[in-house]
Amino acid sequence: MDYEMFFRQELDGLHKEGRYRVFADLERKAGQFPRATFHGTEGPRDVTVWCSNDYLGMGQNPDVLAAMHGAIDGCGAGAGGTRNISGTNHYHVLLERELAELHGKEAALLFNSGYMSNWASLSTLASRIPGCVVVTDALNHASMIEGIRHSRADKVVFAHNDPDDLRRKLQAIDPRRPKLLAFESVYSMDGDIAPIAAFCDLAEEFGAMTYIDEVHAVGLYGPRGGGVTEREGLSHRLDVIEGTLAKGFGIMGGYIAASAATCDFIRSFASGFIFSTSLPPALAAGALASVRHLKASQTERAGQQDRVAAVRARLDAAGIPHMPNPSHIVPVMVGDPVLCKRISDELLERFDIYVQPINYPTVPRGTERLRITPSPLHADADIEALVGALAAIWGQVGLRRAA
Amino acid sequence: MDYEMFFRQELDGLHKEGRYRVFADLERKAGQFPRATFHGTEGPRDVTVWCSNDYLGMGQNPDVLAAMHGAIDGCGAGAGGTRNISGTNHYHVLLERELAELHGKEAALLFNSGYMSNWASLSTLASRIPGCVVVTDALNHASMIEGIRHSRADKVVFAHNDPDDLRRKLQAIDPRRPKLLAFESVYSMDGDIAPIAAFCDLAEEFGAMTYIDEVHAVGLYGPRGGGVTEREGLSHRLDVIEGTLAKGFGIMGGYIAASAATCDFIRSFASGFIFSTSLPPALAAGALASVRHLKASQTERAGQQDRVAAVRARLDAAGIPHMPNPSHIVPVMVGDPVLCKRISDELLERFDIYVQPINYPTVPRGTERLRITPSPLHADADIEALVGALAAIWGQVGLRRAA
Repeated sequence: MDYEMFFRQELDGLHKEGRYRVFADLERKAGQFPRATFHGTEGPRDVTVWCSNDYLGMGQNPDVLAAMHGAIDGCGAGAGGTRNISGTNHYHVLLERELAELHGKEAALLFNSGYMSNWASLSTLASRIPGCVVVTDALNHASMIEGIRHSRADKVVFAHNDPDDLRRKLQAIDPRRPKLLAFESVYSMDGDIAPIAAFCDLAEEFGAMTYIDEVHAVGLYGPRGGGVTEREGLSHRLDVIEGTLAKGFGIMGGYIAASAATCDFIRSFASGFIFSTSLPPALAAGALASVRHLKASQTERAGQQDRVAAVRARLDAAGIPHMPNPSHIVPVMVGDPVLCKRISDELLERFDIYVQPINYPTVPRGTERLRITPSPLHADADIEALVGALAAIWGQVGLRRAA
Repeated sequence: MDYEMFFRQELDGLHKEGRYRVFADLERKAGQFPRATFHGTEGPRDVTVWCSNDYLGMGQNPDVLAAMHGAIDGCGAGAGGTRNISGTNHYHVLLERELAELHGKEAALLFNSGYMSNWASLSTLASRIPGCVVVTDALNHASMIEGIRHSRADKVVFAHNDPDDLRRKLQAIDPRRPKLLAFESVYSMDGDIAPIAAFCDLAEEFGAMTYIDEVHAVGLYGPRGGGVTEREGLSHRLDVIEGTLAKGFGIMGGYIAASAATCDFIRSFASGFIFSTSLPPALAAGALASVRHLKASQTERAGQQDRVAAVRARLDAAGIPHMPNPSHIVPVMVGDPVLCKRISDELLERFDIYVQPINYPTVPRGTERLRITPSPLHADADIEALVGALAAIWGQVGLRRAA
């Protein structure tokens, strides 16, 4: 077998489909977000970023940066080991306490990424709870799907955000079997939000353990940034709340918040947790500062909601079609991978605006889109520039306007 | 099902077996490694750490810390997205180039952890190469085992570091099937090293792709820190070299170095890569400084080898049994989980020395050990204190001395 040839052929296939990914080489400019230096083939130039998941701009928050600097000076670069073998830093302990408190849970457990927190937690729960059936939303994130797949537990998929279908699926499972209900609050690509209370009612009725992914919600929703579960007063009804230290909190890493026994169980049995060098002290210290800031401050959340509304209003006025939803995500729909890439390229080349095209497998084929994420740092002039550029390109490529 | 009760019962089982893990709450002190503040139940106090995987002390290297500070000031806290969606920072690009050059490969690809680099790369290769059989060393790391398991490809396990058994296993596989040979260079718990050249000969003979995990070797071996493959002039014979930015390089993160097509293939298809927020710029910048430093400086490698020899000599003089091996890892064998934990507790309580007990599943039952990792920063007095303490406890608990 010619392995090189095989890899090249597979990559050729991606090129032909128009979904070969080209990464934009960026330097975000702390203190000047959403501005970044783009390192293109013709040298560096400034662009405005409209697709970051640093939703609130916490990645340049002065308290966060000061905390990171302090931890580097105090504790050095890395943690120096896995959590068990010399790699538990005091900042990890403080951050886990803070996250537990944020979600009203007894404990929390850190992972190196949100992907790992879902993969490791779901695979551990589903594989170790004897006879467990995982009941999972059809649009759950790749990290959840892979975690469930890895567990080799039986899996039942219910229609996205559909309590009626969930009831049907739960009814069809042997009532004696343990059940793990896994879903998200905010779905990142369409921006829709799960009927959490209805799902919790069903979980209670059928004796299912509940697991919610709040990665696109923590920091952003709820009076203290505890996510949609906090906003709706439902945190206590979820057995496991999973979140991220990236996105709303602006750094990197993942976590779960749950009962002490649940966290201890996953801590003790999850291979991906046990065998990973832990987060550098600077990341844990920065995340601690970010969580604390967003527990107290409403400025970032209010600013983001205001900017989201402003972007939507300007898109409507310009007739650029976008998917309505109750969250902060503004999906501008294109529906073709080649066109989506072309619009993104034109925005970057002609208008110094960076919005990455979102193609399969991140979204289903035929629903390719520009996923716009307004932050509190986007000024009115940025919005005018974005919508003006989109309107110009829209006419040029002959895409249909919204009514 | 009472889920809480189930978790508590499982945890009780760990307690009864003596392998319930208690994490030491530490604050490493930058500039004073291997010293750290231990946050115990009776308040904080200073201890000497003897089990860190920051093998060379790069976690307090001034160039590394300066690079991290600089990247925080320049680019902020987090990368702001997945690699594809606004999260490729210029430091990622520079670091990938540097790592490719270190291993003499066309390209490199970063992951959020060494665990993720193994899991994502092996599962992607093994699941996507049609009909692939993975041929895997019996003692490969959990992250490799889980990656192979996740792929659902056929798997053949060969006896640890045994070329004769590897030949038998390769001979038994249909010669038309693609084969992926996966092994490590330095095995972390026993400290033994694979017969890499013999394995490469067999891979060539039988047409297998080769994948080596060098996480316990990069930075530490080879004239520029390129690992055992560099030291033995074998880098070009390995298709994929996997490494870590923790351990020898002192930070966190993982990577592979390989041909451009191989890296691009994994970049394009590995779910765990695609769907993770990328490493913060500060980690990439720090790792870049660390790799560059260790390409040029022999001080850390020579210092470590000197300290390893000194620890072994003093252990021999004191009659403390340790497993001989050709690497930097000094496993002091205990063979019982409860005793291992007790010795570790006594070292910490009475002597302010921290060495975590290593129990199942990290090592096989009956081979419980104290895994000592001498660094260039451990002074003669530290070694005297360690061996003196071990000798005192050895007599007290009635463990047999070495001849």
